[in-house]
Parts: sequence; C-alpha cells; structure tokens
Amino acid sequence: MRLVIIGGSDAGIAGALRARELDPSCEVTVVLDDAYPNFSICGIPYYLSGEVADWSKLAHRTLEELSSHAITVRMNTRALAIDRSRHQLRCRTPDGDSQELPWDRLIIATGATPVIPAVEGLRDGLQTDRVFLVHTIADARALMSALDIVGAARALVIGAGYIGLELAEALTTRGVNVTQFEAREHLLATIDPTLAAQLEAELAAKGVELVTGTRVSSLVANDDVTLTLSRDQSGNTTTATGDVAIVVAGVRPETDLAVAAGAKLGHGGAIWVNRRMETGIPGIFAAGDCVITHHKLLGESYLPLGTTAHKQGRIAGAAAVGKADEEFRGVVGTQVVKVFDQVIARTGLTELEASTAGFKPFTITTNVDDHKRYYPGARTISIRLTGDVLTHRLLGIDMLGPTSSAVHKRIDVAAVALQGGTSVGELIDLDLAYTPPLGTPWDALQIAAMEWLQRIPQRQESLSREVSPG
Amino acid sequence: MRLVIIGGSDAGIAGALRARELDPSCEVTVVLDDAYPNFSICGIPYYLSGEVADWSKLAHRTLEELSSHAITVRMNTRALAIDRSRHQLRCRTPDGDSQELPWDRLIIATGATPVIPAVEGLRDGLQTDRVFLVHTIADARALMSALDIVGAARALVIGAGYIGLELAEALTTRGVNVTQFEAREHLLATIDPTLAAQLEAELAAKGVELVTGTRVSSLVANDDVTLTLSRDQSGNTTTATGDVAIVVAGVRPETDLAVAAGAKLGHGGAIWVNRRMETGIPGIFAAGDCVITHHKLLGESYLPLGTTAHKQGRIAGAAAVGKADEEFRGVVGTQVVKVFDQVIARTGLTELEASTAGFKPFTITTNVDDHKRYYPGARTISIRLTGDVLTHRLLGIDMLGPTSSAVHKRIDVAAVALQGGTSVGELIDLDLAYTPPLGTPWDALQIAAMEWLQRIPQRQESLSREVSPG
Repeated sequence: MRLVIIGGSDAGIAGALRARELDPSCEVTVVLDDAYPNFSICGIPYYLSGEVADWSKLAHRTLEELSSHAITVRMNTRALAIDRSRHQLRCRTPDGDSQELPWDRLIIATGATPVIPAVEGLRDGLQTDRVFLVHTIADARALMSALDIVGAARALVIGAGYIGLELAEALTTRGVNVTQFEAREHLLATIDPTLAAQLEAELAAKGVELVTGTRVSSLVANDDVTLTLSRDQSGNTTTATGDVAIVVAGVRPETDLAVAAGAKLGHGGAIWVNRRMETGIPGIFAAGDCVITHHKLLGESYLPLGTTAHKQGRIAGAAAVGKADEEFRGVVGTQVVKVFDQVIARTGLTELEASTAGFKPFTITTNVDDHKRYYPGARTISIRLTGDVLTHRLLGIDMLGPTSSAVHKRIDVAAVALQGGTSVGELIDLDLAYTPPLGTPWDALQIAAMEWLQRIPQRQESLSREVSPG
Repeated sequence: MRLVIIGGSDAGIAGALRARELDPSCEVTVVLDDAYPNFSICGIPYYLSGEVADWSKLAHRTLEELSSHAITVRMNTRALAIDRSRHQLRCRTPDGDSQELPWDRLIIATGATPVIPAVEGLRDGLQTDRVFLVHTIADARALMSALDIVGAARALVIGAGYIGLELAEALTTRGVNVTQFEAREHLLATIDPTLAAQLEAELAAKGVELVTGTRVSSLVANDDVTLTLSRDQSGNTTTATGDVAIVVAGVRPETDLAVAAGAKLGHGGAIWVNRRMETGIPGIFAAGDCVITHHKLLGESYLPLGTTAHKQGRIAGAAAVGKADEEFRGVVGTQVVKVFDQVIARTGLTELEASTAGFKPFTITTNVDDHKRYYPGARTISIRLTGDVLTHRLLGIDMLGPTSSAVHKRIDVAAVALQGGTSVGELIDLDLAYTPPLGTPWDALQIAAMEWLQRIPQRQESLSREVSPG
C-alpha cells in the first residue's frame, strides 16, 4: 500500500509516523515544497530572538530520524495536481521536471498560508529585503539575514495576534526597537479584552510601542520602510518609519490542490473532513491547518493550531491504513502564549464568542494568588470565567499570570474539565493538588468558580427581569 | 438555628463559612482547644525554615475576618463530651470551668493526631525541650524556641513522609544539619519507589543524610538526643546523636468524642460519614482529617489532606443548614510535595495500590521534556503511568520534575481526567495548550499515554500466557 502525503509539517509527519506504526508494510512518501521537513514553525520567534542559536535545532525530528521510520521525504518537490481517477500526484521535482507519484491513499496536509492584508504597496514591498512574512523556516532565515545585513534597529510589526506578540518579544530580546500596529482596539482578538488590556501593559513595560485601533493603509519600502497609518474616519493620517516591516496578519487554509481535486470546503474556507479526516473523495484524507476543526462547543470551526494538526494527522495516518476506530474527538480551543514575563491562555469560549454562539453567558473576572500568600513569591493570576446562566455549564476560561504561576498548565486543568462537559459547580469538586509553595487549598480555578456561583443569582434575576413581560 | 463546630482548622472553618453563606440566620460557634483558629498547618515547615518570618502569617484568615462573617470563635476551649439527647456540648473553658453549649446541629471536625511510634524512651523525651512532634502551631512555636535556645546545629528527623521531607528541607534552609530516618526501604511510601529513589538523590545533593530501611528502637534525651538504630534482624545496633529530634510518623483520626457519642467508625478507624457528611446520629455531621474519605477508585478510604478537609467541611456546613443537594463527589488521591528544587506528585493509584485493590495494572516509566528542547531551560519530567491491562482505564500517574516544570499543575490535568473516568487512550485526545517555551505539541502526559499504548500488547500477551492453561 502506497501512502503519499502532501506536506511535511505537523499534520503530514504525524500521519506518516502513525501509518508506519500501525502498518509497517505500507510505503510512505512525504512531498514538501521546501527543504524543512518536520520543523517547529512555532519556534521561529525564538530563532529570531537569538535564544535558539541554530535554525536547524527547530526540527522536531531530523531527516535521519524520519528515514529510520522508513518514511521517504521528497524535499523541494511541489505537488501540482491530484489525479483522483488515476491515483497519481503530479509534482515538480527539485530539477524542475514534472513527475507523477502513484498513490493508494493520499493525505492532504498543505497547511495554511499567511493572509496578506490590503495595504497599498505591500506586495511590492515583499519583493524587497525590507518587508517580510514569517511563516516558513525559509521566511525566518531571510528575515534573519536582513536583520543582520541591514543592522535593523527599528522594526514595524503589522498585527498583534499570537505570532505578532511573540515576534515583538523576540525582536526586543534581540535589541531591536519594535513598534506594533493592530487595527482592532486590543491585541489578541481571541482573548477577552479585559485581560488583553493587562497584557498591553506588559508590552509597554518591556519597551514595545503598541499602537491599537490603527489601520496601515500603505507601505513604501526603499532604504527603509514607511507606513501610512489612519486612526479614525477623518481621513487624517500619520506615518511610521522603520528599518524593516513584518506582516503577521493571520493565516488562511491552503486548499488549492484539494479544491482542484473536487474536495468540499467547510467553515473558514477550509477543507471539509469528517472525524476520520476523510474528505469524501475515496482514498483522500486531509489534516492540519488546511482543514476544518470539530469544536466541542461550536461544532464545525476553523482553528489552525499545531496541537490540533498533530492530532488530526495522527488520525489521518490511522484512517489511511484502514484503522477505522480512531476518530477526532474535537477541541475546546485551548491556546497559550508567553509574552515576555506574562502568560496568557484560554480554553473554551470568551464571553463574546459564547453569546455569538447562542449561549447565555455570564462572566466574572477575579484575581487570585498562585500560591499561599505567606510563602515568598506569590503572584496574582487574573481569571475570566464564563458559564451559561441557564444550565451553569462551563463555557470558557481566560487566564493571565506571570510565567512562574503555571498558567500554561492551569489552563489545561480547565480544558480537561471543559472537554468533559463540566458545570461551573463541579469545578469545586475537582481533587487538585496542594502544597503552600505551589498552590492554595482551594485552587485558583475553584475560587473563581465559587465567586461565579455567588454572583450568578443576581445575573439570573436581572435576566428574568429582562425577559419578564411586566 | 445554632450550629456548633468542634475544631477550628480547615474543615471546621470551611463548614462555618459555608453555613453562614447559605443561611445568614444561623448562629455559628466554633470551639477549638488552642489559640490558632483557621491556621495553615501545612505552612509550618516554611515558618521553621525562616521563609515565613512571623507565625501569625500562617493564618488563612484572621480572627477579625472570621468575626466579620459573624462566626463566634471560642479559643482555648476543650470539647469534653457530646450529649446527643440533650443537644449539649460540654466544654472546659479557658478558665478551667465546665460549661455546656447548646446545639441544634453539630459538626465534628476534630482532625487527626500524630502517631507516636513505639520507640523506647520517646514519650519521656517529648516532655523535654529536645524532642518534638510538629502538628500544631503551638508545636511549631515550641520547636522554634528550642532551635533558637539550643542553637541546634544537628536535627534528627524520624520519618520521611510528606511532612518529614518538608521539615528536612526547612531545617536545611535554616542551616541545621539533618539526618533523617525511615523504616521503609524508600522515602514517601505513598509514591512509586522508582520516583522515590530519584527524590532521594535530591535530598543527598542538598546535604540531607537520609537513612532508609532503619528502625529507631530507643531514644534518650538529655543535653542532646541519642537514637538507637537497628538495620536488620541481627540485633546489631548503631546510634545517632543530635541536638533535637523531631518525630513525624504520620497521623491517626481523632475520634474520641465522636465514639463516646456513639458514632460509627469506618476505614482507618476514622469516623464513618456518608457523602453528605452525616454520621448517622441525628443532627451530627463530621468532616476533615477525623473522617473517612470517599475515593473514586478505592471506595471508602482514609486519606487526611487539607484539600479534602476544605471540601468536606464545605459540604458539612451546607448539610447542617439543610441544603440537601450537595454531596462529596470523592477524591482520586491527588497529592504534591516540593522538596528543595524538585516536585513530586501523584493522583490515582500507584502500581502496588492498584494491584492490591484488585485491578490488573500495567505501569510504564518515561522521561519527557517539559518544553521544546530547542528553547533554553528544558528539563526532564519523570512520569509513571498506570492503566488497567484489561479495560485500559487510567488508574494513576506519579510525576517528578524540577519546580519550574509545573508538575504541580500537570498532576491536576491527570487528576481531572482520572476523576472523569478516562481511558489511557483518551488522554491523547485532550486539547492541551502548547507554546514552545512552556510545552510540547503532544503534552508530556500524552507522550506517556502513547508509550503505554505501544507497550501494552506485550503485557497483554504475557498476561494471556500466565492465565493460559497450556
């Protein structure tokens, strides 16, 4: 059985490894259009910062390790077209030749591509060594060269999502002054604005100039980069100048090959798949940043994340070799990012997302200690807890705290509870660990749950007044 | 309605607060036989170490805060007898008088008392200022004075459970040389021996001399303390001498009052209660270290812990004021302790406990990175994962890692999954947070689960050979 996988990042390699694990007789070929199989794209900021000295360290596995699993990796090979009737994948080889690869099963793991925002002059700018996207290892290496060659002292970062914030930290760590532009009123659209505002203070304290509520309307790159900025509807504009500009405005699913082969699209324009990662085209599976994600609270959604890509890839690999019993169980949207000394994390839905999705959310904000105050080093964690007013179902948690406060694992505690369909009250029953230097007898999450329960009657009362005819 | 609570520690105060929260009309009186209501007993080691400069900081709440909840606290008042027919509690007041307190509902929260091991001369030693138990704030203050007065340079710690290890660290931090004796072959009987052995290396590295497999047979206290030690059955003995000796040999439930009132005892000689903390005697509830604990995997057990005492006290308080819908959902035995720079934690059952309880456990040990190796500061976490061979149900996790690796919250992630009745395979589906400086795309727990699943077929095969008649 010949399994061909298009894409050599998280989903593609997870699928390849799983297929080989379950069926050592299958021949697995991974086709990727660059020279960086199984690299940790999420690690790029830490290469740019200088914390990872050598870009090759960003590989999850070396080519030798992949070979030891008998996985054939065809690098610098671009998949051009899927022939679904003849079961052939047409490719352009590193030499520029056209070649067909036969497959019995195919996994499409083409990932996502950066969104290029509608900024006048941006596409031209990307042809210079002053303006960059940061999505691939090749992008990162090009940016790194430019930073070195230009001796960049001032960077303009367009976008303040997860990657934008990591880049702002990375460049600051490197000694580059950063000015960051975000069209929305707050950074991190995916996080509750209350906590986003707290994170903005961390950026300011570390010297990043964050300019929110500001659109970049044009870009001119010559010996430096100049952006034209508009802040309101008045038509008044200002400008900002830097040595380089980096555009991090999100991603969209890369679906061209799949669409040409007749695959159906779903939420967010991503390839539709069922829970076995089947596209509906016989023998063709898809996984990772190019496909929809099943979300426990939202149903079908698009949420490209490395963790999900690994899980989906693993299931696609199993399904491709005929293991029918593995299914993607669905995510709850768990995410975390470290920004300097603060960590911000979420699972489930924010208050806004919950009401948009048709829930009746009630959200509290509370500040709690990460461990007993009497023991040195106690720090405050800010928690936003959202539950449904009518059912008391837990809908989401957002958290912000210093790196030392283990917010990155506290969010996982909430995620597991949420994935199990817990009520807010049931959080209080969780048997969580306690020792004074590291926790509190009622965990921070449980204190938040108690506060929510104490305050919910008022909210329910005001709700009943709203809906009451009198 | 008059609610009287015997005991002013975690369970007693949690019950008092919850009763007042739910029924502001009830009169709540807490009777305790010392002057330290609502103190964090778990904080004692950090007072002895000098990290908490003032013992009064160990209070979870001040007397004023308790008063602000309209809770009457009667300190230095010893409960002598419960009259269940006349609904009176006979007490000895601080003046030494006898007094009766009327009650409509009573919560027994008498806690636990230290086990005094059968060591010749120990009871006499406890009358001197050389030999100590460390169970109450008064004990801690007495030990602190003795350390100061004696100018203790060398302490002998008898016992290497949770408290014993925290004391060993505390005294070392204080500059006292510690020699620690444990009758069992390894420290922490509650933790898997593989990980216990790793923790022993941490003690050695920090200068604690740990002597395991060694019984203390006698103790003589004069100007110093001399212990007689026996290591084997030969009758040969050695001795050890120090300035002070501290005995931390575990606790037993304090049940005298309850037994005299006719309460039934259960597992471990603790007061039997149902999930509403009812003792079976009308109007009398009990909670905390004096009662049995409902364990999700073991059923009735005895497992005195502050976290459980808080939960049980809260439920007893609710039940006492007639809220019938709250029940104790049961624990999974989650525990954590920090010992110098290492954290050891557990949830569920160890391999030994699981087989004793009738499961067919299979356990793997694996060492995984706490975050992506390319990002600076990655450290190794050791995980023991136990699952049932037949059902694949997750039975327990033990973990050891440096303080920075968030083991204290990683164990909570496992605890929530375990409490939900997960299988080992379902751990792989958990939607956990990832960012390279703080985690891995497959979380450490998921990597352990994958390894367990990879190795289980061999175990099942050997099991089927064992049970096969041929």
